[in-house]
Amino acid sequence: MSDVGPALAGMMCPIPIEEYPHVTLAHGGGGRMTQMLVERMFAAAFANAALGEMHDGAVLTLPPGRVAISTDSFVVSPRFFPGGDIGSLAVHGTVNDLAMCAARPIAITAGFVLEEGLAMEELWRIVRSMAAAAAEAQVPVVTGDTKVVDRGKGDGIYINTTGIGVVRDGFDIAPRRARPGDIVLVNGPIAEHGIAILSVREGLEFESPIVSDSAALHGLVGAVLDAAGEAVHVLRDPTRGGVSSAMNEIAQASRFGIRLEETAIPIAEPVRGACEILGLDPLYVANEGKVLVIVAPGRAGAALAALRAHPLGQGAARIGEVVDDHPGRVFMKSRIGGMRVVDMLSGEQLPRIC
Amino acid sequence: MSDVGPALAGMMCPIPIEEYPHVTLAHGGGGRMTQMLVERMFAAAFANAALGEMHDGAVLTLPPGRVAISTDSFVVSPRFFPGGDIGSLAVHGTVNDLAMCAARPIAITAGFVLEEGLAMEELWRIVRSMAAAAAEAQVPVVTGDTKVVDRGKGDGIYINTTGIGVVRDGFDIAPRRARPGDIVLVNGPIAEHGIAILSVREGLEFESPIVSDSAALHGLVGAVLDAAGEAVHVLRDPTRGGVSSAMNEIAQASRFGIRLEETAIPIAEPVRGACEILGLDPLYVANEGKVLVIVAPGRAGAALAALRAHPLGQGAARIGEVVDDHPGRVFMKSRIGGMRVVDMLSGEQLPRIC
Repeated sequence: MSDVGPALAGMMCPIPIEEYPHVTLAHGGGGRMTQMLVERMFAAAFANAALGEMHDGAVLTLPPGRVAISTDSFVVSPRFFPGGDIGSLAVHGTVNDLAMCAARPIAITAGFVLEEGLAMEELWRIVRSMAAAAAEAQVPVVTGDTKVVDRGKGDGIYINTTGIGVVRDGFDIAPRRARPGDIVLVNGPIAEHGIAILSVREGLEFESPIVSDSAALHGLVGAVLDAAGEAVHVLRDPTRGGVSSAMNEIAQASRFGIRLEETAIPIAEPVRGACEILGLDPLYVANEGKVLVIVAPGRAGAALAALRAHPLGQGAARIGEVVDDHPGRVFMKSRIGGMRVVDMLSGEQLPRIC
Repeated sequence: MSDVGPALAGMMCPIPIEEYPHVTLAHGGGGRMTQMLVERMFAAAFANAALGEMHDGAVLTLPPGRVAISTDSFVVSPRFFPGGDIGSLAVHGTVNDLAMCAARPIAITAGFVLEEGLAMEELWRIVRSMAAAAAEAQVPVVTGDTKVVDRGKGDGIYINTTGIGVVRDGFDIAPRRARPGDIVLVNGPIAEHGIAILSVREGLEFESPIVSDSAALHGLVGAVLDAAGEAVHVLRDPTRGGVSSAMNEIAQASRFGIRLEETAIPIAEPVRGACEILGLDPLYVANEGKVLVIVAPGRAGAALAALRAHPLGQGAARIGEVVDDHPGRVFMKSRIGGMRVVDMLSGEQLPRIC
């Protein structure tokens, strides 16, 4: 999803790179150089009316309803990976956090922490990708901020995005709302983002390259909410810490247990193979285009059908259920029939994955 | 303003520092260690209902009105300085950006990028200061995010805060609205934040220490709007790039000129002296508790009186006016009577000032 939209595709870096081949401290100084970067690059890429005011913030008229707000900083390494880059990921990650609150994303902000010496061309590539992802998700970047830190005090670029959205009327989606009998669905094969990142880091080559699942999920979530209504109790994107951490957080918040079926959890063969080579449990590997849907049993079929009817949910599956036993714990019926506890990730499995 | 509020004053670091003396990569991994940091430290310090949901975002019911949103990343070095630290600054900076849109701040988010090895005690000190500043400003921290980058890829801590607020009904405050005849006011002596930072960095000692002016200005701004109503055309906090950059941006956006009176611009003697020693022009030095108010002449007296009646505006002064000449430019009648152009900052004067 990191392809640039038609308006920006092929557009040259709007900062003259012969003169400014790299980001300098002056680009963060608040003077003429900052203004040039903001006006020529950011305002051009993210063009919209609110941003055009060049004020300290953006002023928006929101549709009626409760407002969801979510923030996320992105420090992924490497910055470019199969299926995306830090720019598209920064859009998807925050749009998805809003979607998990049953909110329709309205706008996002972009806060850049740039390291002195970052190639201007690379910044432009990331900004274009970010703008394309925002355009595709139909969520404008309405205001931003740029800081530059001295060489050796960053890693090229860190991006914070914060999003606001309007919560669908009548919905109360929250981890505490899981109930015994509820069904756990996922929209497709897991662990792809983490393995895509790791394959670049470790220089691994596979027959078919493993591509991050990074995608904006609000359209998919909207379709599920349309289909299953208030029977949807919890939505959660299993990012850092993977499916296991997300499930554990829900089990703890609801004070019920969650039972997963190992054989039901979709994992693509190349990802399974890579996990075996790397000694990783795919349940702990990050996703960036997956959602766990916890839904009352009566509407689980409708929710699953809605997932499968969407381009981002064709591999959707029912992977478990909420149970009375073992409150606050997650366990899994394994491929060979036994039960094992699925703990939260306890160390760092993969640093800087998002 | 970095003193901690009564609830947190003296409270020990809630993470056992014998066991976890430093931030580790696992604190950003999304598993058990991340959860411990979020629940024991952040949720305890910033305690409020929205944060307590432990969801991917916060859901709020806003009062009616247009919504302002503003984002800012803080990379200030050193992290602790006379008059504040990166935590209190991160609250003040974003609250002030909202105030500049004539918005009453409703909530802020906190995105932390921590460097592996940051002392846990130091993080706690910053979080306490941030919580105290938020409590004093009466703006809850409703959601957050924590990432940890490897040693040598950050500088202890960077913080993004993003704020939302509700714009006062009937107000349209924007740089483009400056009009010839409008009066330029400032709420007190300039250049204190930048010089306070620099004095620590350079190890300068003064007879009386120079203290950052970092403060939340929304109360002061509210008083000015009450007093002068819609005659207030522009509000701008002269942070990075100082008064000169803020004035130049307003001149450019409005397409009028701005004439400043050098003798009218309040500067404390120790700051003036420090600027002379350091070879800095105070017009280019950052402020974090100052606001430039551009107001129609008929209400300028009322606005100035309202500033002076507020604890954060006792040193308020009329420093210039908007004029027809030299559209888009700022110039200054100097102490000795001549006129000089006040350009935007063109290099970096002081990196990592905020």
